[in-house]
Amino acid sequence: MRSSVFLYATYSLCVGLGLLCVLFVTYWSSHWNGGFAWDHSALQFNWHPVLMVLGLVVVYGNAAVLYRLPFTWKQNKLTWKLVHAGLMLLALLLSVVGLYTVFDNHTTINIPNLYSLHSWVGICTVALFALQWILGLAGFLFPCSPLWFRGSLKPVHVWLGKMILILGLSSCISGINEKLLFTHNESSAEPYSTLPVEAKFANFLGILLVAFGLVVFGILSKNKWQRPEPDVESVRLLQTDNNTRI
Amino acid sequence: MRSSVFLYATYSLCVGLGLLCVLFVTYWSSHWNGGFAWDHSALQFNWHPVLMVLGLVVVYGNAAVLYRLPFTWKQNKLTWKLVHAGLMLLALLLSVVGLYTVFDNHTTINIPNLYSLHSWVGICTVALFALQWILGLAGFLFPCSPLWFRGSLKPVHVWLGKMILILGLSSCISGINEKLLFTHNESSAEPYSTLPVEAKFANFLGILLVAFGLVVFGILSKNKWQRPEPDVESVRLLQTDNNTRI
Repeated sequence: MRSSVFLYATYSLCVGLGLLCVLFVTYWSSHWNGGFAWDHSALQFNWHPVLMVLGLVVVYGNAAVLYRLPFTWKQNKLTWKLVHAGLMLLALLLSVVGLYTVFDNHTTINIPNLYSLHSWVGICTVALFALQWILGLAGFLFPCSPLWFRGSLKPVHVWLGKMILILGLSSCISGINEKLLFTHNESSAEPYSTLPVEAKFANFLGILLVAFGLVVFGILSKNKWQRPEPDVESVRLLQTDNNTRI
Repeated sequence: MRSSVFLYATYSLCVGLGLLCVLFVTYWSSHWNGGFAWDHSALQFNWHPVLMVLGLVVVYGNAAVLYRLPFTWKQNKLTWKLVHAGLMLLALLLSVVGLYTVFDNHTTINIPNLYSLHSWVGICTVALFALQWILGLAGFLFPCSPLWFRGSLKPVHVWLGKMILILGLSSCISGINEKLLFTHNESSAEPYSTLPVEAKFANFLGILLVAFGLVVFGILSKNKWQRPEPDVESVRLLQTDNNTRI
């Protein structure tokens, strides 16, 4: 019971930090960078940080910890698999649209794409995320996927899932740093090195993202909080007898 | 047996990637940035990326996977705890000297310290690392530390250990990106956006660091590769009877 209260308190912290991250990144783009538009301009670029933080970190992180919530354990696992896959698809789509905004803006104003390390890590993250989602669909939701495949895929899925969050965080940290270096370069009125209010605010957004990541990994690292699984043999019997999906 | 072969193959990959990271960052500093010195100049700064990659990622990552190597399991755990703590202390000292080089260089040429998000994440990482090392010493190596304390500390130590590696990787990625943006800014002969050879090389170093992190987390995530632990009750009896350290 105490463990469950602690889990829900940690989960509330995770949701709270996630919301703060989204609020901070939206306020950053709208207050200091001119707001949003969908016209290939710099205002279109402003969607990029918002969509990446929202998709690649906040929705992704919340979808990753979904199975840890005890109220989901008594219900049909397939339902929660569909919710997990749905949230992950939403996170992936947000990230892909987030990439589109920056490619489209760069192409319009003649800036080459994919030259910075931030962009290399970011594109690898989204590619791995897409691969992970397709493999997850094939392994855990397609009725015809054999047991040996989902059995081998599960540890890879769990490991790669954490790696995508790590890479997503690294992409966001390096991206915020890069954006501030561009906006507040040495020839601007307020160089980054003087730490103007915007820079403090966006740096704090980076620290919030790190805190969100620490909490998500904290929830994932506690074995006690894992959804109890039926043992393999009973699953195999169920699979053979009733063709029940696990 | 097959699992052990796979483990050693993965471990060799981890060591190989770690060596490549150190070679790449050293070559970057020496070939494109003028080499090394200890005279408060930009050449002193060149130690910063080398020491951070070496300490905060490569030595740290190798020290983290130490207990997973089967040849250590048959030997006294205290010996390997001391090797783990010694390697972690080396990693911490390298990181602290790495921070010193940049603070000293910045102070000499009148650049403010700790303004970029890269530096905020980096300093938090090293502070958490120092805290982790002191708590680890108090909990797992001090003979007088009570069992309840080391029992409670262990999951926190494991979780925080992974978090420090994640933050170390994020610091290095954002740091490489920042250094390239400074060196190859838009007024230089070869802007970053034209992806000159140095930028390609340093971006590739970033990808090597990511690959190293993926392999370290891969080794840590496989439960089968954990050092077999005696059950808690026998440890408690040993503790009571012989004052044996676990």
